[in-house]
Amino acid sequence: MTALDARPAVLGSTELAQVDALWRAANYLAAGQIYLMANPLLHEPLRPEHVKPRLLGHWGTSPGLNFVYAHLNRAILTHDLNAMFVTGPGHGGPALLANTWLEGSYTEAWPEVTQDADGMRELFKQFSFPGGVPSHVAPQVPGSIHEGGELGYSLAHAYGAAFDNPGLLVACVIGDGEAETGPLATSWHANKFLDPVRDGAVLPILHLNGYKIANPTVLSRIAPAELDALLRGYGYEPIYVEGSDPETMHQAMAAALDSAVADLAVIRRHHDRPAWPMIVLRSPKGWTGPSVVDGLPVEGTWRSHQVPLAEVRHNPDHLRQLEQWLLSYRPEELFDDHGRPVADVTALIPAGERRMGANPNANGGILLRPLTLPETAAHAVGVPAPGATLAEPTRALGRFLRDVFALNADRANFRLFGPDETASNRLDAVYDVTGKQWQAAVEPVDEHLSPDGRVLEVLSEHLCQGWLEGYLLTGRHGLFNCYEAFVHIVDSMVNQHIKWLRVHRQIPWRRPVASLNYLLTSHVWRQDHNGFSHQDPGFVDHIANKSSEVVRIYFPPDTNTLLEVAAHCLRSRDYVNVVVAGKNDSPNWLDAEQAALHCARGVSIWEWASTHTDREPDVVLGCAGDAPTLEVLAAAKILREELPELAVRVVNVVDLMRLQPEAEHPHGLGDREFDALFTPDRPVIFAYHGYPWLIHRLAYRRSNHAGMHVRGYTEHGTTTTPFDMLVLNHMDRFQLVIDVIDRVPGLVATAGVLRQRMTEAQGRHRRWIRVHGEDLPEIRDWTWEG
Amino acid sequence: MTALDARPAVLGSTELAQVDALWRAANYLAAGQIYLMANPLLHEPLRPEHVKPRLLGHWGTSPGLNFVYAHLNRAILTHDLNAMFVTGPGHGGPALLANTWLEGSYTEAWPEVTQDADGMRELFKQFSFPGGVPSHVAPQVPGSIHEGGELGYSLAHAYGAAFDNPGLLVACVIGDGEAETGPLATSWHANKFLDPVRDGAVLPILHLNGYKIANPTVLSRIAPAELDALLRGYGYEPIYVEGSDPETMHQAMAAALDSAVADLAVIRRHHDRPAWPMIVLRSPKGWTGPSVVDGLPVEGTWRSHQVPLAEVRHNPDHLRQLEQWLLSYRPEELFDDHGRPVADVTALIPAGERRMGANPNANGGILLRPLTLPETAAHAVGVPAPGATLAEPTRALGRFLRDVFALNADRANFRLFGPDETASNRLDAVYDVTGKQWQAAVEPVDEHLSPDGRVLEVLSEHLCQGWLEGYLLTGRHGLFNCYEAFVHIVDSMVNQHIKWLRVHRQIPWRRPVASLNYLLTSHVWRQDHNGFSHQDPGFVDHIANKSSEVVRIYFPPDTNTLLEVAAHCLRSRDYVNVVVAGKNDSPNWLDAEQAALHCARGVSIWEWASTHTDREPDVVLGCAGDAPTLEVLAAAKILREELPELAVRVVNVVDLMRLQPEAEHPHGLGDREFDALFTPDRPVIFAYHGYPWLIHRLAYRRSNHAGMHVRGYTEHGTTTTPFDMLVLNHMDRFQLVIDVIDRVPGLVATAGVLRQRMTEAQGRHRRWIRVHGEDLPEIRDWTWEG
Repeated sequence: MTALDARPAVLGSTELAQVDALWRAANYLAAGQIYLMANPLLHEPLRPEHVKPRLLGHWGTSPGLNFVYAHLNRAILTHDLNAMFVTGPGHGGPALLANTWLEGSYTEAWPEVTQDADGMRELFKQFSFPGGVPSHVAPQVPGSIHEGGELGYSLAHAYGAAFDNPGLLVACVIGDGEAETGPLATSWHANKFLDPVRDGAVLPILHLNGYKIANPTVLSRIAPAELDALLRGYGYEPIYVEGSDPETMHQAMAAALDSAVADLAVIRRHHDRPAWPMIVLRSPKGWTGPSVVDGLPVEGTWRSHQVPLAEVRHNPDHLRQLEQWLLSYRPEELFDDHGRPVADVTALIPAGERRMGANPNANGGILLRPLTLPETAAHAVGVPAPGATLAEPTRALGRFLRDVFALNADRANFRLFGPDETASNRLDAVYDVTGKQWQAAVEPVDEHLSPDGRVLEVLSEHLCQGWLEGYLLTGRHGLFNCYEAFVHIVDSMVNQHIKWLRVHRQIPWRRPVASLNYLLTSHVWRQDHNGFSHQDPGFVDHIANKSSEVVRIYFPPDTNTLLEVAAHCLRSRDYVNVVVAGKNDSPNWLDAEQAALHCARGVSIWEWASTHTDREPDVVLGCAGDAPTLEVLAAAKILREELPELAVRVVNVVDLMRLQPEAEHPHGLGDREFDALFTPDRPVIFAYHGYPWLIHRLAYRRSNHAGMHVRGYTEHGTTTTPFDMLVLNHMDRFQLVIDVIDRVPGLVATAGVLRQRMTEAQGRHRRWIRVHGEDLPEIRDWTWEG
Repeated sequence: MTALDARPAVLGSTELAQVDALWRAANYLAAGQIYLMANPLLHEPLRPEHVKPRLLGHWGTSPGLNFVYAHLNRAILTHDLNAMFVTGPGHGGPALLANTWLEGSYTEAWPEVTQDADGMRELFKQFSFPGGVPSHVAPQVPGSIHEGGELGYSLAHAYGAAFDNPGLLVACVIGDGEAETGPLATSWHANKFLDPVRDGAVLPILHLNGYKIANPTVLSRIAPAELDALLRGYGYEPIYVEGSDPETMHQAMAAALDSAVADLAVIRRHHDRPAWPMIVLRSPKGWTGPSVVDGLPVEGTWRSHQVPLAEVRHNPDHLRQLEQWLLSYRPEELFDDHGRPVADVTALIPAGERRMGANPNANGGILLRPLTLPETAAHAVGVPAPGATLAEPTRALGRFLRDVFALNADRANFRLFGPDETASNRLDAVYDVTGKQWQAAVEPVDEHLSPDGRVLEVLSEHLCQGWLEGYLLTGRHGLFNCYEAFVHIVDSMVNQHIKWLRVHRQIPWRRPVASLNYLLTSHVWRQDHNGFSHQDPGFVDHIANKSSEVVRIYFPPDTNTLLEVAAHCLRSRDYVNVVVAGKNDSPNWLDAEQAALHCARGVSIWEWASTHTDREPDVVLGCAGDAPTLEVLAAAKILREELPELAVRVVNVVDLMRLQPEAEHPHGLGDREFDALFTPDRPVIFAYHGYPWLIHRLAYRRSNHAGMHVRGYTEHGTTTTPFDMLVLNHMDRFQLVIDVIDRVPGLVATAGVLRQRMTEAQGRHRRWIRVHGEDLPEIRDWTWEG
């Protein structure tokens, strides 16, 4: 451990007074936000009506955050740093609101909250107040890229912001509560990937204030030597700042930051992975707040987590104690008569974009440069006729992405993220032009590892997601490729990102950022090596519940449509795009031009697969997803051959949100358009990639909803053949033909023999695979034209 | 580091030969499963038709797992251990299938797979074969409680199994891929909770085989000193077993296990947290497999992850290499002419329940003892008339759970899990009879911490979930209480648990286990301190997609119904029960008797809240959830007073799955029952706790679906008042009255004035809260009777 106590004081008396004044001012403002709706400067004695009727917010973490922020301001000024701030304990919103108001960035963002007494009153009142601002470090807070409401992602976001940002210092406060989460626990290892030269630096500040909501924290209660070993084992060189006496702590924190900055300056010169500096700040929870309330200790305990004095409006003792607490910061020394912070308070605040609330990286849209994309047509596979050629869709996408890397190499603003699945997902053409970033040891047998690779692979979906979010919110582009089933691991993270984008879109000074793009492959229908645990198409259902302004879902049925969709997603802004596509050899249905048209429409009739297109169809076969599309075409072929009089219309859906009413989603089809495709009253047999209920949930308001019969994945899975998966879930071609026969009025009577043959084919399949272990030759060799 | 090389050899030559024979036999059987469907003993030269047409499975991890299993067998025999095995790299299914077959537990479970040549052929063929067994350590594998398909949860499961199991040793192999995941990274800290005396022991075996699918692993590529610091920082004393020479490795592993067992015997004597022993096994990936294939290195690289020789059926070189590889294990020395393992192979295998495949803890239903539950009536709150009293539902549940702890104290078979939210969720009455288990340092100010507490609180939903799963699958009972929004963190884990239960239920020798019970509280409608990031009711949607045999969803509307539902869930088996309930003071609608009847029905008409019950209603007000129920009753009261001629029926749904058709879910109402409640054709205004589309998705087949108008959470949230949340999402009482007026034919004409007043009330609300920061007095003071 670094013995800070023995070091000479780094702060002269003036600087010490200034950093303390800044800290006191921020503490005053943080407490004021939780309690006051009037009398912000305490120019008159505090009365119950000055106090908010509902006391909401979290005091406990706020003084620690203010302490860190004040000292970072000093370090930025002293060392001319380009720094941003990630607040792990995001419920310490009052602290960040206080500091951005003090530095002026808040008033620049929200001019109505002026930097004077009126503005201070508004700052106080708006906090956690109806029509005001949330209690967390939400998008409304300038300088924030991390809301911190759901704990665990701060350090991943910080590393995401640092990639490809040489010269940027991302200071990341990690609460000791957050440190217990899984995502945070593995985020420490992000330093095995970050390049000290080409990337920025992350400075983790582990804030041990000892308590969560109601319990001590693990890291604050293990032996110091154990904690030290853990952090060194994670690859860091910890610097400890521990105590509660403000003056001692100011000196220690200033020295710690100076030391870390000096270390980083050296680290930045070499590609080798260093022991990165980090700071462990051990300070009391609710530091400087009420020490005892109603006879119980509060400062330094979990009781200061939210509102230390809870009965201020009704309990005169609490009211008096609140007033004493606020006055203990000596507001009269911090703000002038007009409520403006005095010179001593602002002396250590940097100017312009050096202020952390005004750092452009934290409003990434400002810095965003569009990607130069290759022509999709240049990567398109040849399709002389529908189904005449085969391709692996994601392999073609890999070539497209290779060119994206190449075309944007000088900007260094695109990355591919994956949990060790990029090659398995057949995107490995990208390794022609870039490597996998890796800072740990390399062995001769390794392939494609490099310290400055632009592909990030780690077996943690949480890290992939967190890195990508941080990367996007600081103005860059990316794609997360993932096994479909395991993307559920980040359900909760994407929730929070969607919520962030939803609010971000409504904030005038926040500029559009690149969309978060998922490529979900190795999907439910092709988990040949694995089985039931790897079969889950429900991420799309999860996404479909979220704000329609933000979410988009695509099911490209073949290679050329995948390319079109991918290009579209990479051009888009402020969305979460989910693209589900296969990696296995499969038929190409549309050539480049047709694919572009189909994707532009989002849904269209495939005339070439339909029959008797001059009249209303007897039945519509709908499909969304590559496996369902293949089965629908196989069924259509059977129908065409066996029931040539039947008018069959094939409709393919690539943009799933087209199915929703236009009032529900911007992509929703009007009812007339919907009826023009699916008819108002003919039977629709719809084969869908995922859980069938989603189609009903999207289409239940359509006039023909009662006519829709949806097949999909119904949670029947195991390790078996691709076709058997379809049979198990009643979405095989034979079943679809049976469904048509059963649903088209009068057809059972005339097509009974065909129906019987379809049932026999299902039985033949079952017997065959049990013996041979692979699908029937007629299934394996099936072609549309043959 | 413990210098094992310097130790004297612990294995004599016989024992060395035996453990090596056991290992070779298991390796032979693992490789055989991946490749062969005939000629299992290689009694004739290997021909293509002996080989499976689709080569599936994972070789890479299997020899390491076999190595550990063989040595654990020796240790069990030598030290008379009661041990079970958790396979983190669950894709090493062939290894566990091989070992359980060798020890006989597999044949006892599946008598058709005999312990002879015929059985061996079946063992080989069935693996990853249609109609056979999955590729992972699925429920079909005796001794397994952990499928290991989705990586990250092995160590949490192991600790869950060890709680309250003194004398049990849970050996847990953690792959170095899995070790990169967040949930695994934080699981190491579970040793801050486990009591060495009252709980069992966990022996983590970190298997560094160096590679994931296509990349090196982080922990295998950091400096040994860094790894050592990390593991010591996690609170373990690592013992290293490193190399590839079998003889040296056998001696090292035997010594390591002997050393760990000796340490554990000492540790078990004291409550103090020790440095727990663990083993680091560094061995080549695909150890003993083909070293070079097609000129590229395979053994010891990622290329051995799945199927090292991929073209065996068509490439004669591969075929010959496979034969050589299999023969390298000298099967003629391992199996007799009938295919039975010889005495040297079985010499170190323990007998009966000491075999890890036959340990009853891994088939927990065998050990399960029902909970003794208190009478719900004894905890019921008094309800002289509907809405006449208030209560905090979860606080009453806390008292009920307190008694569950007390009544089952001697069995030590119930635990409560929570991410630091048990007190916040108002269940703290449990601390009257038990504490929070805690093995780290304790300070004077702490409350309710104790080394043998039965409440587990850690700020990791992953750990809570993983511990509970491990606890349940080993035959105990539990409840996970969680903030509603953040339970999404375990979406993916519960997926896997549901899949496990789905298969487990179909296996005759697996006995029913206690259900996994969630109490979701601090829900979307009452996140007063937080805001948008804490508002997400979608977990229920996620669950509703899963196998209907397993999932149950309850929305008790008040305190007494919550008690009934909780008691029902704690008595149930093999389910995942999700219970959503509020913690804030709210009206009691039903007394104990009415609550029991209502919960038994799952849905019923609330006659007392309805009007003109002697005739068909003009409108049905449906509700599910506590906040929606309150709003529906408030709307019903307005309608009763303002439109006394209108026949209004109030229907409350406590068991959400009652809405599904009976063909879709065992709890589904028949269509006639549904129509009897909701009418076939009258307008239904349904107020639902979560995303409104779920109600449509459950009820779309009902005859009156077109008449259903659902209100719910539509992703409009922020930090605001409880009633404002309802207004923002259009589910407030005024809106519900407007909906009734708009939907009941002819009512707009006669009730236009009331409609206007409702709109005005909404406006009054909006203006009021912006000024006063709390809800209108008429909302706060509202009562049903008043």
